[in-house]
Amino acid sequence: MKLWDKGISIDKKIEKFTVGNDRELDMFLAEYDIKASKAHAKMLGKVGILDDEEVTAIEKELEKLQRQLKNGNFHIAEEFEDVHSKIEFDLTEVLGDTGKKIHTARSRNDQVLVAMQLYFKENLQQISGKTGELIDVLLDLAKKHEEKLLPGYTHLQVAMPSSFGLWFSAYAELLIDDLYLLEAGLKIVDQNPLGSAAGYGSSFPIDREFTTKELGFSTLKYNVVAAQMSRGKCERTVTSNIASVANTLSRFAMDICLYMSQNFYFITFPDELTTGSSIMPHKKNPDVFELIRGKCNKLQSIANEMILITNNLPSGYHRDFQLIKENSIYAVENIKEILDVFIHSIALIKVKDVDLNDEKYKYLFTVDSINDLVMQGQSFREAYKEIGGQVQNGNYRPAAGKKHSHLGSKDNLALDEIAKKKRDVKL
Amino acid sequence: MKLWDKGISIDKKIEKFTVGNDRELDMFLAEYDIKASKAHAKMLGKVGILDDEEVTAIEKELEKLQRQLKNGNFHIAEEFEDVHSKIEFDLTEVLGDTGKKIHTARSRNDQVLVAMQLYFKENLQQISGKTGELIDVLLDLAKKHEEKLLPGYTHLQVAMPSSFGLWFSAYAELLIDDLYLLEAGLKIVDQNPLGSAAGYGSSFPIDREFTTKELGFSTLKYNVVAAQMSRGKCERTVTSNIASVANTLSRFAMDICLYMSQNFYFITFPDELTTGSSIMPHKKNPDVFELIRGKCNKLQSIANEMILITNNLPSGYHRDFQLIKENSIYAVENIKEILDVFIHSIALIKVKDVDLNDEKYKYLFTVDSINDLVMQGQSFREAYKEIGGQVQNGNYRPAAGKKHSHLGSKDNLALDEIAKKKRDVKL
Amino acid sequence: MKLWDKGISIDKKIEKFTVGNDRELDMFLAEYDIKASKAHAKMLGKVGILDDEEVTAIEKELEKLQRQLKNGNFHIAEEFEDVHSKIEFDLTEVLGDTGKKIHTARSRNDQVLVAMQLYFKENLQQISGKTGELIDVLLDLAKKHEEKLLPGYTHLQVAMPSSFGLWFSAYAELLIDDLYLLEAGLKIVDQNPLGSAAGYGSSFPIDREFTTKELGFSTLKYNVVAAQMSRGKCERTVTSNIASVANTLSRFAMDICLYMSQNFYFITFPDELTTGSSIMPHKKNPDVFELIRGKCNKLQSIANEMILITNNLPSGYHRDFQLIKENSIYAVENIKEILDVFIHSIALIKVKDVDLNDEKYKYLFTVDSINDLVMQGQSFREAYKEIGGQVQNGNYRPAAGKKHSHLGSKDNLALDEIAKKKRDVKL
Amino acid sequence: MKLWDKGISIDKKIEKFTVGNDRELDMFLAEYDIKASKAHAKMLGKVGILDDEEVTAIEKELEKLQRQLKNGNFHIAEEFEDVHSKIEFDLTEVLGDTGKKIHTARSRNDQVLVAMQLYFKENLQQISGKTGELIDVLLDLAKKHEEKLLPGYTHLQVAMPSSFGLWFSAYAELLIDDLYLLEAGLKIVDQNPLGSAAGYGSSFPIDREFTTKELGFSTLKYNVVAAQMSRGKCERTVTSNIASVANTLSRFAMDICLYMSQNFYFITFPDELTTGSSIMPHKKNPDVFELIRGKCNKLQSIANEMILITNNLPSGYHRDFQLIKENSIYAVENIKEILDVFIHSIALIKVKDVDLNDEKYKYLFTVDSINDLVMQGQSFREAYKEIGGQVQNGNYRPAAGKKHSHLGSKDNLALDEIAKKKRDVKL
Repeated sequence: MKLWDKGISIDKKIEKFTVGNDRELDMFLAEYDIKASKAHAKMLGKVGILDDEEVTAIEKELEKLQRQLKNGNFHIAEEFEDVHSKIEFDLTEVLGDTGKKIHTARSRNDQVLVAMQLYFKENLQQISGKTGELIDVLLDLAKKHEEKLLPGYTHLQVAMPSSFGLWFSAYAELLIDDLYLLEAGLKIVDQNPLGSAAGYGSSFPIDREFTTKELGFSTLKYNVVAAQMSRGKCERTVTSNIASVANTLSRFAMDICLYMSQNFYFITFPDELTTGSSIMPHKKNPDVFELIRGKCNKLQSIANEMILITNNLPSGYHRDFQLIKENSIYAVENIKEILDVFIHSIALIKVKDVDLNDEKYKYLFTVDSINDLVMQGQSFREAYKEIGGQVQNGNYRPAAGKKHSHLGSKDNLALDEIAKKKRDVKL
Repeated sequence: MKLWDKGISIDKKIEKFTVGNDRELDMFLAEYDIKASKAHAKMLGKVGILDDEEVTAIEKELEKLQRQLKNGNFHIAEEFEDVHSKIEFDLTEVLGDTGKKIHTARSRNDQVLVAMQLYFKENLQQISGKTGELIDVLLDLAKKHEEKLLPGYTHLQVAMPSSFGLWFSAYAELLIDDLYLLEAGLKIVDQNPLGSAAGYGSSFPIDREFTTKELGFSTLKYNVVAAQMSRGKCERTVTSNIASVANTLSRFAMDICLYMSQNFYFITFPDELTTGSSIMPHKKNPDVFELIRGKCNKLQSIANEMILITNNLPSGYHRDFQLIKENSIYAVENIKEILDVFIHSIALIKVKDVDLNDEKYKYLFTVDSINDLVMQGQSFREAYKEIGGQVQNGNYRPAAGKKHSHLGSKDNLALDEIAKKKRDVKL
Repeated sequence: MKLWDKGISIDKKIEKFTVGNDRELDMFLAEYDIKASKAHAKMLGKVGILDDEEVTAIEKELEKLQRQLKNGNFHIAEEFEDVHSKIEFDLTEVLGDTGKKIHTARSRNDQVLVAMQLYFKENLQQISGKTGELIDVLLDLAKKHEEKLLPGYTHLQVAMPSSFGLWFSAYAELLIDDLYLLEAGLKIVDQNPLGSAAGYGSSFPIDREFTTKELGFSTLKYNVVAAQMSRGKCERTVTSNIASVANTLSRFAMDICLYMSQNFYFITFPDELTTGSSIMPHKKNPDVFELIRGKCNKLQSIANEMILITNNLPSGYHRDFQLIKENSIYAVENIKEILDVFIHSIALIKVKDVDLNDEKYKYLFTVDSINDLVMQGQSFREAYKEIGGQVQNGNYRPAAGKKHSHLGSKDNLALDEIAKKKRDVKL
Repeated sequence: MKLWDKGISIDKKIEKFTVGNDRELDMFLAEYDIKASKAHAKMLGKVGILDDEEVTAIEKELEKLQRQLKNGNFHIAEEFEDVHSKIEFDLTEVLGDTGKKIHTARSRNDQVLVAMQLYFKENLQQISGKTGELIDVLLDLAKKHEEKLLPGYTHLQVAMPSSFGLWFSAYAELLIDDLYLLEAGLKIVDQNPLGSAAGYGSSFPIDREFTTKELGFSTLKYNVVAAQMSRGKCERTVTSNIASVANTLSRFAMDICLYMSQNFYFITFPDELTTGSSIMPHKKNPDVFELIRGKCNKLQSIANEMILITNNLPSGYHRDFQLIKENSIYAVENIKEILDVFIHSIALIKVKDVDLNDEKYKYLFTVDSINDLVMQGQSFREAYKEIGGQVQNGNYRPAAGKKHSHLGSKDNLALDEIAKKKRDVKL
């Protein structure tokens, strides 16, 4: 049951090759295809291509499908190549000729485009919401542990005093940058492509502003060729923006895995978040955070895939575009799951009392010592030499306990300012 | 002459390996390092670490360097490992102890950070400006050639009627999406990192809001650890956003190269934009657009490099970060050059009169024929069958000349709406 | 039912997150895990850790599982996290304590390693076989169409005469290069990792040379830490080598899609290999080759994913490695399917008689014209000027029909030499 | 002075854009272009296109250029767009018409191809040689430190006893895998493309087997279209194979940086291999290994760039290919430098006596304890439970000092077998 079937039997192997896993993936899009089909039908009514009765009949049937979907009774049988064929078949079976008319003035191309963009739009908002939630959790953790010190490292070498407060809120502030990118992605997908048909519009007198309003898009992608070329651009942008969140989380997870090592031992997690070994009975491995790291790293590779598939293709639709559906949906669904797991897990972190008087940490305070000399009038370079000499001669005595008072430093975390920055993002 | 030199001679080979090409690259950053050093000095004056005389002396010297830079007399000699050492050396040579004091309360890390971010900020604005300029040129070309028809392709097969108007303005509208990403990138780099020192702040009572205002940053990256981690994040974001512009231009260039082929022959360029062959005297090759395409494709690979270098590194500075300087600057400088060349070249395009009555284009109009039947009352699917039958039987007669009236289609290009969309981007 | 379960209930969400899709993927590995388990059991018998009766009992049970697998009755129920747990559970259920002993002197880590490497080994051989088959088909097509001319392009501009013979056999010869890489990949996976346990070996007196011989590996990965680090290296290598085949096929598919365009029209395919459009009744789109191109481009992105997941991780196992299983298996299974479809489809190609006397092709022969002059004694540069002058003045007359006699040129295709090169690859 | 100049003045900006940095890059290729030009001239003599006197004159001039190159007196002035123009100009200036004849029966395309492939061939051999040298150094270090224990980690958690012997020789054995890939790369570049001209051969009766022998290639790329398409394939293969070496070195460098941290402190390096900090006088940072890591990670991104530039381009030369020269040469030159620095530096490593009796390492020996019970007759799973219980109850007593006797384990390193594996690689 393919809509473009011209009565020629197609080799089964080739069919499997061409259909791929569209049926599964399209379950993520069904809701949006129905929604867009309703808007399209109403518009066809408005411009006189369908009469009122036809519009009402189509709407009723689409709402039935919406209920099936909600109740888990909507399935795409093997005889359909995708969700679009399935829905059109259902309409036609019940409504006959009226059902067939839904495809007037649209093409499979803009049907997929509009469903994908509605899917991306709703999900980018969800992803931003979850990112915002994680930011809040991190700011709370920073507040809670703001007094607890940590060694700060550069080059993985003990460098200067840091704190759990600094550590948690650093990732909170970095995630705000990711929100800016998600916000830009949202703008890009929030432009109605419906009506571009196969990429060159049509001779029907359709009303694209009507469907734009009906579907809640902020604007149209006016130019029909541009609308068609959004296929690929949306996927690249969305996966690239998701990759930015993933990058922040991946680096956070790396810190966590390292800090759980016996050689650092700054943090632990309760048993339900760690896993054992099939041969080592003592192991409590940070599998959850390793998987977050690995999954986030995987997500960072997807934008490149999108580019490789679409790059150097002349304008106009190519079937290759079918293949970018899979991993762009994968990226969306995964980052949501990762954010959920991260929010759940980080809240359970147990923070240790790290003994900064330990021998291996004693040079943490050399810079503070230098600064004391500077505040007493020495130039930085001279003070550097003096303390450096003490270190070399083994008579350096740590100046622990100095407060860092400037904005954004360990004793002045600027948590309210960071929270405000987050609130200022419009999403 | 390394600032961290502890008097130990370092093997020459290792030195070359570690310094790399920083001296060359830093010429792009010199202007911003001087600017940031001035702001830092003034701030040190404000909080009482330097006295007024010292501040004035330092400012005067830095302004001298600014003039040298402007006049092309600023060079980083081989004895310096980077621009920062060179500037500090100059200050110290002239001002003695006062010069040395400039490094108080800052580190090489935040010095590089602030210079890079100022460089990115100014350049993202320039790139947006040039992108906007190209959009204007394309909208003008679309207006100028709006009546000229082109075959529209899907799957590289003749599909439906298109036009030069649609083609030029499609890329204009797509470039607006790229502006949204550049805008987000701008927000990310427009946060002052100065004062984060080596990534953990310091015990000096510095005033980071003062330098923020002085340097024209919109806000601070408050958290000092976050400020440090912006190294990498800024580069990834900027190169990824530049890649988005590059992707649009690369696909445009592919169209151009294809359309210049004798088998399409829709466009040509004057001789000064084409090149010959060392063995074929008849060749007029589209080298400029091939190089645009190739360079844009190269630019699309750089964000992945940034990720590969920084990924899975625990928080805190690592020397690896030195290596992301090169290609992030490369991306910035190249996209500017590409945009300049594109703007210059596309304006010289010669558009052919394409004969859509040619036999190979005759099926361009089947959809319009179907739509006629639909407007006369047939369902789309039935009309599709009828015209399909004519095509198969060889008696299809093209319905050329139909107008497409809906918004964004070939006879209603929405150029004003697209122009307005562009103007609405705040940059 | 997790082997490392320490009686602590684990949050369901986390469990789903950590198990992922291992159960599905492991169906590809079941055969190899059983095979390796048998070899391991026999070895444990040989060194006296198991007695003969135990070995026989375990072998018998494993053979039962092998039959289940062959008959399609082997399933990994939801209660198991992976195939390894499932098999060990089955053994233990039937054999009690004896079943439990199979895990002596091995770890989940080397169990996965050995199963993956056996899977890769067999499949690289299959992929090479199919690649070789495609080479043969292409050489046959080249032979069959060796007289049929084509325009040759550089810069997508008409350049010099080419032929279908050259075109088909070019891809044949390029695929031989891909065989060299598959051959190297085979060497890398063909080294027994079994016995490395969790990556540090064990205190058991196991005989790794015995399992090496038993499993048909060419050699061992001797060093146990190296064996563990092969996780990641094998996946990167295999996916990178598969990408090389994919690259060749992708470029071939691009040629095919372009040559099917009405603007070239050099080739066609029978209807069962093309697809129609939901709105354009005349379309015969090259979807199969577009999907080959797209899937091959997707395959070219996977090695980068493997690098991103594993890069910058210190030595020793990390759970992140679980995630490279999915797409390395995906790459293997997909390239096999692509090769099958390519072999099937390319054999159905219909080659057109291209009229090189068409006006647009007339400059194809300028180089031959120059060469005539050169053979008459002019220097190349002078002859170039003369013919170039004729082209510019419009009085150039094509020198069609010249033979190209040198080895590898259109009239001397060297098909036997290419076939011999292929036969010389040891696989 | 461009060979294809048709007397039309070209805009300076465009010229800079198109020439790029070819002049600098071509200094790496000059030697090979001269060599190939000599072989080409001799072949032209052999087939009667040049007479003996002409051949001798050309050879003499080319040898003069070879000497200039050797003495550092060979420069490509700004008036030339590349090395090929420069050499041809020199020949013509001295030899007049005879000099011009060198370009008979070849094109810029196969000239670049043959020079690049000769360059790659020689350098892949050098890279393999240096890799082999590093393997030897590592095997020596393994031998020297084979008794020195290290904690072995999985998931960054203390896992099982390892040793410096295992650690050094693991990387040695992994590098042998990289040799297999370099070997395959060598086969791919070691096929003479000369004579393919612009990608379609020519009507000259050239003798490609003669130049193949003369240039020391193992075989020809017979098919001229395949020869042309080797542009891109060679670069992708070479950079991908180099990336494999880089991946191994990058992971090694990560271990080194981590093990130098005060929290591990397993190794140090002499002062000349570490660097200080501009603000922390106590720092001895592992910059050399961080730069090795970063540079190796950068190298791992280049194959993807090669794919992005060449992907989806139809067959035949495109100017885009000019752009893959830069980073493929960069990759070659960098990996050689990295290998040199690595060999130099790793030899200076200072290995600590790690106290495995430290409290944090005490569970290293649980698996050995279990194995003892197993050897006494318990099943692995039961023994696992018993020792696990001891760990949980805090009464576990480490079974330190157990020997691991099996092949490839810490007390049986198989260094001779690994050395033999390396020797068996034919390069």
